[in-house]
Amino acid sequence: MADVELIPGGSLQTKTPEEGRQLAMKLARMIIKVTQPDADERNRQREIYSTEPSMMIALGQTVAIEFATIAAANDYWK
Amino acid sequence: MADVELIPGGSLQTKTPEEGRQLAMKLARMIIKVTQPDADERNRQREIYSTEPSMMIALGQTVAIEFATIAAANDYWK
Amino acid sequence: MADVELIPGGSLQTKTPEEGRQLAMKLARMIIKVTQPDADERNRQREIYSTEPSMMIALGQTVAIEFATIAAANDYWK
Amino acid sequence: MADVELIPGGSLQTKTPEEGRQLAMKLARMIIKVTQPDADERNRQREIYSTEPSMMIALGQTVAIEFATIAAANDYWK
Amino acid sequence: MADVELIPGGSLQTKTPEEGRQLAMKLARMIIKVTQPDADERNRQREIYSTEPSMMIALGQTVAIEFATIAAANDYWK
Amino acid sequence: MADVELIPGGSLQTKTPEEGRQLAMKLARMIIKVTQPDADERNRQREIYSTEPSMMIALGQTVAIEFATIAAANDYWK
Repeated sequence: MADVELIPGGSLQTKTPEEGRQLAMKLARMIIKVTQPDADERNRQREIYSTEPSMMIALGQTVAIEFATIAAANDYWK
Repeated sequence: MADVELIPGGSLQTKTPEEGRQLAMKLARMIIKVTQPDADERNRQREIYSTEPSMMIALGQTVAIEFATIAAANDYWK
Repeated sequence: MADVELIPGGSLQTKTPEEGRQLAMKLARMIIKVTQPDADERNRQREIYSTEPSMMIALGQTVAIEFATIAAANDYWK
Repeated sequence: MADVELIPGGSLQTKTPEEGRQLAMKLARMIIKVTQPDADERNRQREIYSTEPSMMIALGQTVAIEFATIAAANDYWK
Repeated sequence: MADVELIPGGSLQTKTPEEGRQLAMKLARMIIKVTQPDADERNRQREIYSTEPSMMIALGQTVAIEFATIAAANDYWK
Repeated sequence: MADVELIPGGSLQTKTPEEGRQLAMKLARMIIKVTQPDADERNRQREIYSTEPSMMIALGQTVAIEFATIAAANDYWK
């Protein structure tokens, strides 16, 4: 786990909500990457979940939860 | 990911709770769009989840989580 | 989406916790309505999920998440 | 929905955390009751989910989410 | 439900995060206990979910949600 | 449960968001470890969930929820 950056850039602060949203997706992806380091296997799985609506919806929940934290960390970019 | 706007309008602030709710649905949809860029495949999946109650309920959870963040960002439109 | 009201009454504020709970159920229902506009199909699905305990439990989670937002919006009716 | 009380007692405030926990279970139960008004059918479902670990775990999540709201409403009984 | 303590000790306050984590696990367990009072049946289920990764992950979510409330109740032991 | 540390280090405070993220993963893992103490069985399960996209997504949700608590405990490292 030592040589993977779980939070690209190392901070929860972003300039815009849009960048916050991108960070939420990256956070979700890094957990998958660190749990399954094999890129081919990750690609195989992506093929599966991107064509399976129940998994797409579940992925949406994961990103939504990550984003909630990032949004709070940025005081909602108010 | 560069040319898709994950947050249409780029802000979490909305004039009304109703618009906040619409934004929550859009946020959920954009994650699906960016993960599955093929519109035909997304339409195929929509046909599946819109006729499958367990997926409809899961979709409702995703929107509810997105909305919680948007509502906090707008201080609950108090 | 234009002619459906996602938040009946347009506000998260309610007089009582009981009304807040009713609103939470309505919010969850409206997402389903807007995603599946066919009333017959929604009735068919209701028959399914109301007799399937795993879906009933999942529905309970959705309402609980919606209610959390409504309760915060009303400062917990303190 | 008119003649069912979704929040027994009509308030989120409780004297103790223990009573808050009991209220969380009641809230979860009332959503099921209002969605499935047939007591025999609810008993049939209870038989199913109480012997199915994945549903028991999901039920635990629902209660946990309800309790989070109740605990906040009581300022964590501090 | 009268003679089971849903919150062992009756309080959300703990001396340390570690004890808070233990309490989170107990809270999750007590919901299962009160829903399924038969100890043999609970043991049977434990055998199932402890060897089924999807259920283990779901259990982890339940504990995480309980812990979030306990941590807030203790002001994060700051 | 006595001789396992559920929170390695015993604190929710971390120096950086990156370390907070690592702690979130550890918290999720310790719940699994304490529920399933057999290392061989845990390895068997890891093989399963790391090759099953729906479980990977669910795992991501668990970590996201743990991280939300840790981030709040650190005032989002602002």
